[in-house]
Amino acid sequence: MRMETLLEVYKQSKYQVPGHGKRDFHVLKRVMEGMDGQQESDLYGKGKVIEDFQVKMSEYLGKESAVFFPSGTMAQQIALRIWCDQKGLKRVAYHPLCHLEIHEEDGLKELHHIEVILLADKSRVIELDDVIGLNKDIACLLLELPQREIGGQLPSYETLEAISAYCRDKGIRLHLDGARLFEILPYYKKSAAEICELFDSVYISFYKGIGGIAGAILAGEKDFTETSRVWKRRHGGDLISLYPYIISADYYFDMRVNKMEQYYEEAKELAAFYNQCDRVSTMPIVPVSNMFHVHFEAAKEKMETILTAISKETGIGLTGYVREVTKETSNYEVSVGDLYSQVPKGALKNVFQLLNEKMKEN
Amino acid sequence: MRMETLLEVYKQSKYQVPGHGKRDFHVLKRVMEGMDGQQESDLYGKGKVIEDFQVKMSEYLGKESAVFFPSGTMAQQIALRIWCDQKGLKRVAYHPLCHLEIHEEDGLKELHHIEVILLADKSRVIELDDVIGLNKDIACLLLELPQREIGGQLPSYETLEAISAYCRDKGIRLHLDGARLFEILPYYKKSAAEICELFDSVYISFYKGIGGIAGAILAGEKDFTETSRVWKRRHGGDLISLYPYIISADYYFDMRVNKMEQYYEEAKELAAFYNQCDRVSTMPIVPVSNMFHVHFEAAKEKMETILTAISKETGIGLTGYVREVTKETSNYEVSVGDLYSQVPKGALKNVFQLLNEKMKEN
Repeated sequence: MRMETLLEVYKQSKYQVPGHGKRDFHVLKRVMEGMDGQQESDLYGKGKVIEDFQVKMSEYLGKESAVFFPSGTMAQQIALRIWCDQKGLKRVAYHPLCHLEIHEEDGLKELHHIEVILLADKSRVIELDDVIGLNKDIACLLLELPQREIGGQLPSYETLEAISAYCRDKGIRLHLDGARLFEILPYYKKSAAEICELFDSVYISFYKGIGGIAGAILAGEKDFTETSRVWKRRHGGDLISLYPYIISADYYFDMRVNKMEQYYEEAKELAAFYNQCDRVSTMPIVPVSNMFHVHFEAAKEKMETILTAISKETGIGLTGYVREVTKETSNYEVSVGDLYSQVPKGALKNVFQLLNEKMKEN
Repeated sequence: MRMETLLEVYKQSKYQVPGHGKRDFHVLKRVMEGMDGQQESDLYGKGKVIEDFQVKMSEYLGKESAVFFPSGTMAQQIALRIWCDQKGLKRVAYHPLCHLEIHEEDGLKELHHIEVILLADKSRVIELDDVIGLNKDIACLLLELPQREIGGQLPSYETLEAISAYCRDKGIRLHLDGARLFEILPYYKKSAAEICELFDSVYISFYKGIGGIAGAILAGEKDFTETSRVWKRRHGGDLISLYPYIISADYYFDMRVNKMEQYYEEAKELAAFYNQCDRVSTMPIVPVSNMFHVHFEAAKEKMETILTAISKETGIGLTGYVREVTKETSNYEVSVGDLYSQVPKGALKNVFQLLNEKMKEN
């Protein structure tokens, strides 16, 4: 008989520790059931449903204007293109593990012919000295808060202020990859508008902490967002109807935007459980948002075996996958959402006792 | 008191003559109500919901492979880009009123730097002689069937075959803008696969005759569609979840794909009603699909007044807008859908009697 995979066992587990629950059709059904069917669709970027939400988000972000996009990939390439065109310089800078660098098939380079300078090394966030040390002019600097691919690390707020002031002084536009902006507000103890005030343009996403279906907002001054609409059409993102994404973004925004403090506190608790185990550590050790990475001093296959066994024994799933880092180390990402508080605390502690034992044995 | 606009009166009319009905949230609610909520979302182009539909469409179109896109704008730019890259020649040809030329903010030129040769003049479809007469090499020829902006005209099937054979002989890729492909099958008396066999790549849409929410399919050989996935990601179209569009495309495809013959017959009947009126004519005189344009030898404002009055008097709405063509002429587009057969025939004949009288009076 074929052994069940970690993913299969994880999906069948009674309690899943990370996330908001399955990405199944319920996510949309729940939204649609409460909707008045006679509400009109948006129509190529116009209409009440899209305009109201754009206003709501521009106010939340403290920006003059906001445009809804089907994806962040589209929104961010366009933001950087606009700033490059404005300065007449097709060069930007961002982190080596920026989404545009590693997840977008080089769209920024292939479609927009924008040159990129990679700032800081892969293991840490961008600091002021990295920006000061740039030896070529750039039109725009992109900061991702938190830096997802290194466990969701953050610079200090003072560093953000200093980078912002430096960029304004040097005529460098500062763009925020705020895919997880909601999630970092409790750590900084700032409002979204206070963070965004440091940036010229901001992208936010609705399917990470918010748990919507898809979609993004790009915000900034009116001139900037109006130009972004033209590029949205060029990219093929100005759909006749975006409302399935908009109404679910709005629904889950209202449901979850004020739960980020809870997720953050729970992430710190969960990370502490991991860090008590032998040969297990989280990055960061103390999370600064609802997310972190779990690192194992054990090979991917070994961890899959251990985690599958624990999940089958306890009915609690910690993860559905493990990634190889080196031949002897592995990791995965954790984002805390609605599910965490449903897991019985005693049972969860038992999971980590088991994990600790198995890590010592192996 | 402010006069009601034509659009307002049209929206309130008891019967609307064109279309499938309002683009409101019911369109999605109806689909979701019948869905099993436990079905999993697609995930960045993978998963049962997207893969099953892609297979279904590739089989329907008689192509090896198909990829679901959020929009035709994205799918078609990408198709032309792939054919240009394959030939190492960034030049294509299409009709002067092609969607890419007039509705996409020059995305093809701004993002893909592809040069375009406009074939045929604006008032007619592309014929074989236009293609033979090309004085520069091209990588790809795009044909739009039917040619929407001139009322949905079609070349003869023999012309299609001759253009296809010529292009194959000359190493020119032939791409089909099949936004309204379903709608032309009754006229040609061909299957979709028979038409598509003449083309190297095909785009179809799900919110015209099919009446879905948004979305498109791009189909062709496997190498072609695999490359299109890379460009889909670059464009920002590889969303984490496209299922709201996919399941509604599938739902309305099953509901309406076999009603195209009915819409076509009804369009011919409706066009005949228009053509009986003074200073009114349709383009084409006899429709070749479910669509046509209605031309008036009267100014836009005059027609708005007449059509508003008729709609208020009869409760039947012929259109929600009129476009200016010249100072003394105007037009609008008609696409026949589910609503036409619900309009009482006697009342409809009365509408056209009124229209004829008012056109004679004014």
